[in-house]
Amino acid sequence: NLKIELPVRSLSNVYFDEKNGLIQMGDKTSQRYYLNVAHTKKFMQTLLVAAECKKIMDQKVTTSIRDLYYALKRTIPQTKENTFEDQSESDPIIEDVEAMLNTLREKLHLKADRKGYMAGKVVLHDSGDRINCSKMGSSGWAIPSDVEEEVIKFDDVKADYVLVVEKDAVWQRLNEDKFWKKQKCIIITGKGQPARGARRLVNRLHKEFHLPVYVLADADVWGYYIYSVIKQGSINLSFLSDRLGTPDAKYVGLTTQDVPKFGIPQNVTIKLNKGD
Amino acid sequence: NLKIELPVRSLSNVYFDEKNGLIQMGDKTSQRYYLNVAHTKKFMQTLLVAAECKKIMDQKVTTSIRDLYYALKRTIPQTKENTFEDQSESDPIIEDVEAMLNTLREKLHLKADRKGYMAGKVVLHDSGDRINCSKMGSSGWAIPSDVEEEVIKFDDVKADYVLVVEKDAVWQRLNEDKFWKKQKCIIITGKGQPARGARRLVNRLHKEFHLPVYVLADADVWGYYIYSVIKQGSINLSFLSDRLGTPDAKYVGLTTQDVPKFGIPQNVTIKLNKGD
Repeated sequence: NLKIELPVRSLSNVYFDEKNGLIQMGDKTSQRYYLNVAHTKKFMQTLLVAAECKKIMDQKVTTSIRDLYYALKRTIPQTKENTFEDQSESDPIIEDVEAMLNTLREKLHLKADRKGYMAGKVVLHDSGDRINCSKMGSSGWAIPSDVEEEVIKFDDVKADYVLVVEKDAVWQRLNEDKFWKKQKCIIITGKGQPARGARRLVNRLHKEFHLPVYVLADADVWGYYIYSVIKQGSINLSFLSDRLGTPDAKYVGLTTQDVPKFGIPQNVTIKLNKGD
Repeated sequence: NLKIELPVRSLSNVYFDEKNGLIQMGDKTSQRYYLNVAHTKKFMQTLLVAAECKKIMDQKVTTSIRDLYYALKRTIPQTKENTFEDQSESDPIIEDVEAMLNTLREKLHLKADRKGYMAGKVVLHDSGDRINCSKMGSSGWAIPSDVEEEVIKFDDVKADYVLVVEKDAVWQRLNEDKFWKKQKCIIITGKGQPARGARRLVNRLHKEFHLPVYVLADADVWGYYIYSVIKQGSINLSFLSDRLGTPDAKYVGLTTQDVPKFGIPQNVTIKLNKGD
């Protein structure tokens, strides 16, 4: 009976490491069996993903996790069954393969959809081009999915700190005013929950240039969650917390305690819904 | 009984203009009454949006449609009723106000969330910065929401055509190979259905530089839909078709006729679902 052994990435195998302030993965593993009705689909999916990674690595090209999903998605002939129903099925399998091989998905030649923008006092090299993030007009520099040292090399960092802004709208406002110029800082938005690229970039700027990191987020559960992920990493990607988390990050912005303190009127609040 | 008069933006007031190849808006109007239980919420929302636009215009700043939504969203005191439930309620109201005033939302100082990237043989000016789209590394130039002449000025366009790519993954692949260099073209992706910024950019490149436009989309209903919107405009934004549609755009990529023609195996197909 064929099996795949892989680290458990769920809450049950994750702990908060007080000392370094990061969410870390324990050493529990689980098995995925070919001949187990409950496992067999995931077993197939794992092999499909691993084989496709091998193929693109042999071809010396890269692909995106979305393209990988499309490349592997098909309806199994004579059935109504798809190999993958949507990308939310293939993405966790990619993370499984990463964790299993103790590697980064970038090393498997995979990229993700990009999300997030940066502007400010940084000059960097991206795939051979020199990019001055203080000359990027109204849109800023689009943060690529892979910001590892092989792709992004910092050239000239003249900032005093990094400001991570939850909302793109707020980021655009700050960029319009060239806030990063007046304040000598770098402004980054992840457009909501930042993708790995933006989190890794913050982590690198903090580690390599000792820049303080501030997170400007909403005073609600989503804002705090985004802050916590930037600071401590996430449960899902606990095996990458060293690279993605920035434990020294500080929260800036309104807090719920500020509401009575500054006499903020109750009629600007929004009630929680079930999702919150 | 207070009322607002506005053009009907639904299918019933939209026709396909054969001559110019665009979806156009007719001249039907509808009324929104304050003292009509079915209208009163939308009436309030329309006034909230219009008043907020007036406010930001007076302040000489811009905001995003998402920020506008957040600025206006609140729970009405002593009720469980929100002014807006989510952004899908405020966005159509903005379009109503645009159509009503026969203007562009950019002129109301509104921007949208950005989406889409461009690379290739173009140099342009964006808010005072000079941007060379052939020196933008792995991520390309992030297309801003507002690409009107006041913001984006083309400086040097050395391309033979524009290729609009449905999928960001495919775009990243083409950009990695510097396809735009070999082919002397401009590659644009809207990451699925392009936002107004990307559609307007395609329209401007076609009109101002007579560049042919090709759309590389999937051979499925979504791919054809994206192609049709780039070509003819959309029902919702029929009042903007002149600015957003490019009737001369051509489809490139596989079609369903190619399946038997090239003997493409049936096991790479994906069955349609109800949404399709």
